[in-house]
Amino acid sequence: MTTEAAKASLIQRSDPLASIAAAAGQFNNWGRWGEDDVLGTLNFIDAAKRVEAAALVTTGEAFSLSQPFDTNGPQKGWRRRTNPVHTMTDTGVDAERGNQGFPHGFGGADDVIAMPLQCSTQWDGLGHIFDRGKAWNGRAAGDVVTSEGDLVTGIETAAAKIVTRGVLLDVGRALGVDGELPDGFAITPEHLESTIERQGTSSAVRRGDILVIRTGQYTRVRREGWGDYAGGSAPGLSFTTAAWLHASEIAGIATDTWGFEVRPNEFEGAFQPLHQIAIPNLGLFLGEMWDPDPLAEACAADGKYDFMLTAAPLPITGAVGSPVNPIAVR
Amino acid sequence: MTTEAAKASLIQRSDPLASIAAAAGQFNNWGRWGEDDVLGTLNFIDAAKRVEAAALVTTGEAFSLSQPFDTNGPQKGWRRRTNPVHTMTDTGVDAERGNQGFPHGFGGADDVIAMPLQCSTQWDGLGHIFDRGKAWNGRAAGDVVTSEGDLVTGIETAAAKIVTRGVLLDVGRALGVDGELPDGFAITPEHLESTIERQGTSSAVRRGDILVIRTGQYTRVRREGWGDYAGGSAPGLSFTTAAWLHASEIAGIATDTWGFEVRPNEFEGAFQPLHQIAIPNLGLFLGEMWDPDPLAEACAADGKYDFMLTAAPLPITGAVGSPVNPIAVR
Amino acid sequence: MTTEAAKASLIQRSDPLASIAAAAGQFNNWGRWGEDDVLGTLNFIDAAKRVEAAALVTTGEAFSLSQPFDTNGPQKGWRRRTNPVHTMTDTGVDAERGNQGFPHGFGGADDVIAMPLQCSTQWDGLGHIFDRGKAWNGRAAGDVVTSEGDLVTGIETAAAKIVTRGVLLDVGRALGVDGELPDGFAITPEHLESTIERQGTSSAVRRGDILVIRTGQYTRVRREGWGDYAGGSAPGLSFTTAAWLHASEIAGIATDTWGFEVRPNEFEGAFQPLHQIAIPNLGLFLGEMWDPDPLAEACAADGKYDFMLTAAPLPITGAVGSPVNPIAVR
Amino acid sequence: MTTEAAKASLIQRSDPLASIAAAAGQFNNWGRWGEDDVLGTLNFIDAAKRVEAAALVTTGEAFSLSQPFDTNGPQKGWRRRTNPVHTMTDTGVDAERGNQGFPHGFGGADDVIAMPLQCSTQWDGLGHIFDRGKAWNGRAAGDVVTSEGDLVTGIETAAAKIVTRGVLLDVGRALGVDGELPDGFAITPEHLESTIERQGTSSAVRRGDILVIRTGQYTRVRREGWGDYAGGSAPGLSFTTAAWLHASEIAGIATDTWGFEVRPNEFEGAFQPLHQIAIPNLGLFLGEMWDPDPLAEACAADGKYDFMLTAAPLPITGAVGSPVNPIAVR
Repeated sequence: MTTEAAKASLIQRSDPLASIAAAAGQFNNWGRWGEDDVLGTLNFIDAAKRVEAAALVTTGEAFSLSQPFDTNGPQKGWRRRTNPVHTMTDTGVDAERGNQGFPHGFGGADDVIAMPLQCSTQWDGLGHIFDRGKAWNGRAAGDVVTSEGDLVTGIETAAAKIVTRGVLLDVGRALGVDGELPDGFAITPEHLESTIERQGTSSAVRRGDILVIRTGQYTRVRREGWGDYAGGSAPGLSFTTAAWLHASEIAGIATDTWGFEVRPNEFEGAFQPLHQIAIPNLGLFLGEMWDPDPLAEACAADGKYDFMLTAAPLPITGAVGSPVNPIAVR
Repeated sequence: MTTEAAKASLIQRSDPLASIAAAAGQFNNWGRWGEDDVLGTLNFIDAAKRVEAAALVTTGEAFSLSQPFDTNGPQKGWRRRTNPVHTMTDTGVDAERGNQGFPHGFGGADDVIAMPLQCSTQWDGLGHIFDRGKAWNGRAAGDVVTSEGDLVTGIETAAAKIVTRGVLLDVGRALGVDGELPDGFAITPEHLESTIERQGTSSAVRRGDILVIRTGQYTRVRREGWGDYAGGSAPGLSFTTAAWLHASEIAGIATDTWGFEVRPNEFEGAFQPLHQIAIPNLGLFLGEMWDPDPLAEACAADGKYDFMLTAAPLPITGAVGSPVNPIAVR
Repeated sequence: MTTEAAKASLIQRSDPLASIAAAAGQFNNWGRWGEDDVLGTLNFIDAAKRVEAAALVTTGEAFSLSQPFDTNGPQKGWRRRTNPVHTMTDTGVDAERGNQGFPHGFGGADDVIAMPLQCSTQWDGLGHIFDRGKAWNGRAAGDVVTSEGDLVTGIETAAAKIVTRGVLLDVGRALGVDGELPDGFAITPEHLESTIERQGTSSAVRRGDILVIRTGQYTRVRREGWGDYAGGSAPGLSFTTAAWLHASEIAGIATDTWGFEVRPNEFEGAFQPLHQIAIPNLGLFLGEMWDPDPLAEACAADGKYDFMLTAAPLPITGAVGSPVNPIAVR
Repeated sequence: MTTEAAKASLIQRSDPLASIAAAAGQFNNWGRWGEDDVLGTLNFIDAAKRVEAAALVTTGEAFSLSQPFDTNGPQKGWRRRTNPVHTMTDTGVDAERGNQGFPHGFGGADDVIAMPLQCSTQWDGLGHIFDRGKAWNGRAAGDVVTSEGDLVTGIETAAAKIVTRGVLLDVGRALGVDGELPDGFAITPEHLESTIERQGTSSAVRRGDILVIRTGQYTRVRREGWGDYAGGSAPGLSFTTAAWLHASEIAGIATDTWGFEVRPNEFEGAFQPLHQIAIPNLGLFLGEMWDPDPLAEACAADGKYDFMLTAAPLPITGAVGSPVNPIAVR
């Protein structure tokens, strides 16, 4: 079967449900780590993997892959996803004026935040997306995430897990124009393989890795303004990568875009169909709104694309995702 | 001068202001890294330090040093510090019932949090505490932290910085009863040195390290209930450690308690006097409400107390601190 | 049938479900105002009723029946019900220091609140409580209140409705000791009638009235501290008032307690059984945590217990209740 | 002096500071109600005024003058003013599925809101605006509103006060095209007087009244979308009304716009100069983002423009303003 034919078989443009159902049947990890599993593909990370990751540290450079958590962010309120609101309960101005009631010249500043957990750089937890009423590992969605939160796969279960080898796939630089893919560009398995090949041996993808995909869209919006970064057109993973994501045995994958997969989506009348495979069926951790740019500069400079990645979610009880400041050390 | 005499000279119990002023004069890093510096003791962490840290990874075990971010936390509302409130905007129950309006069986869960940045495991940023109207590096407090946030030393400036060698000083296990120091126990420089000596060579403290101090109080409250964990009596650092903290050239220090220093404080009518030296005068990063217990078990088991520590704050623009999930790998 | 027998027939202590089912069958307004109704007993208020209410204004005294919305409130976090957190985004201290960036000496202060809608003085909306899966007027609970809010009976539907004659029934003063009923005191129909009789003709209850019940518990906690005001023992309406509430054709009823009905509840292993009748079956608006005390002083002084009541909820789209500052004018 | 000359003397376009200083000197109520006063022009409302107001109720029609409190509101984040975020902590979907843990078929829905107090229909409190470092009654701004809130004139002080005669001045209908004034239209004293004259005797403005000014802008944005309703161009009061507002002895004034006064403002480089006179110098209560439209229809129909107005702020301790659902009864 040719690539185009394979793709065609995966994507029946006018019938997303059939395509999703077919892919979910083929690419599925339910039961792979037991019926009580709450970690999905994070199970691919083991102690040896972390040792492998630490061994990648040679120059000691560290990079934050986080976008700002800022009130001037990209969110526009879709499904009540707003930008963070950060307010002070005590300030230096008050301390200086002496109105805080503390003794011996002590002054303090304190603050509060209100934010959607998906407002900026984040991990999607395994309770974030459901496929036809089912959550990760085949559980009924309503048994997993109620109004009290994710009772089973809350992000706190991943608190100590996400330290592994990271690999940057700078698809924007490899295949784009001036380092950027255009909005609507669907990254296929062939694009991923081609990028790996161009980047060289440090980019070989292995079990337990976390991939950081740079499309260049964040570079673009940083230059031109947010526009419709939150939910608009974007480069991203094609639905046709479902098999590749499954076969690669990666522990997670993150992009510099709002929504990981290409937008508009590749089906008529669809909404984030690859999420529907990746999270509930593969148990794959998805990172969104990451900032790979400073790291990408360093990787391009010396041709080494792998690094130690620590991307620890806040253990918010019952959360279906978490803000995160991913740290790459190389 | 004997230790007791030295301590007496540092602590004039009835005159905290004089004691603080004296200590602030002696133990002070203002200008050490230039007048524009925003990182304080994080400057002690360099690339070589991160290489050193990575080399400590041998078994590949990873530990989260974070307490839960949970509505049933210790906060009681002091100065509006409450526990986090995590609410859902979409749930699995809704997805299952089919009321979300998504196509092809797609379902989602989303969530929101409102929380003080100091509600659970956290870093104090350099704008968190002032000494007689001055912030870190001698700036006027009111120039640094206004109602808009920390305009100078906001926690986002530290986003990529906090990867280094960590050293656990398990003072509770070394000097306590059943591994726990009693509330009100003031940890002096002698206690720190004694703990280092007992723990052996892996505990030698070097420039750029981050120390994790285990008092055992968190072990106790986990067993017995929060009680007055937030602001009540606690073991913690003595004011007499000011010189030691300065001379050690550590990059940061964290405890398993609410407030880092011993409580009640060692002066009459005082409030957190060591903070007043450590943050604005030393530029020292303080971690509070960390959970060192699982790591401490592993360290005690094999006698190796140092590890690679990644403790990346969320880059919340202008925040004077940040929730953090510190990850130790050994 | 004697009163005691009637009460016994209503309350089978060991079988709340049977008792509730029986009462729901007898005391039920479903369909009374058409199948599309969203207002329940507020339908009893008509234009003539508001004219009647306005005519009660003679002295021009006005009273707020609201408790404070304050961070030092009674809430302890039950089901994430916390006290309000009010924070400033701009302050006078900033304005004075000139850091706000406004021209010509303009300065401003602004603020933000985060609060449960039930944290202080409030109306329960018709979507607040369900009986065996059914909401007001017999609708399926899941059709009415989803994670997006109350799609049918959101409190905004009552925005312009709640102006009517109010009647204070000061049961505490009529039947209590020093003006207060003890915690656990169940107010029966007989107690209500006795209070009306003692208070005199201005207390006659008529269709469309809103009753304000003073038990005196709020007077007590104001004197002694909140204690377990939020959810603990309290005086309140007996389950046996279900028939009376139905027959009286009142538009609403409010108390000075956390939960309207007597606590502990009158059944074994029960939770707020009268709510289960009042809200979904009668469509009755319940007010909780009101402060009737200043009004009660005035009423006791001149023996006139009725007044014009304006208790307008904030029209928060889809809310199942609302904070309210009820105003009585007499 | 001609009107134009008077206006010119009030508005020196290139020197807002001089104009404001001059107006603040002439139109000022500091000390009028004693040095401890916290109510400003609300002092004009007395018991007789409330009796007068109640006597206006003839048909019993009630109108809410509140806009929705809705996530799809006009706010765009200026100075962290966002739209409200309303989330559920329990829902009917959960109740129906039986996951709430309540006995005997009891189900509940509960909710939480996070919002700026100025996000929708609101009162500005007296601590909301400062003039050259001074708050209402001549107090130092920094003595009044700190990071803890308004310590002196918090909106809770007005909890029981705002019941009075309301007068609708439908300037849009009187002087506009199709009932609407264009953006940028400055309403002068002459426009107010002309509107009063056209509307007839029920519109006579008297001491203690609250005026509701309808410009028609809200009608327009409701039809055409929010656009720049929050902070953009708008019809509104001219700076030249300062004398009129002072002399009229009104208790408050509200508009259907974001910011009460005309925008762009009438000075070069200015920001809300009339606020700077009205709030700190006159002690005048300003209402913003009110919805007068349904009331205006009724007033136009029968030519009666006065009514009983109850506009009770939530008594949020220390707030510099409050959301409000103003109720007009006529």
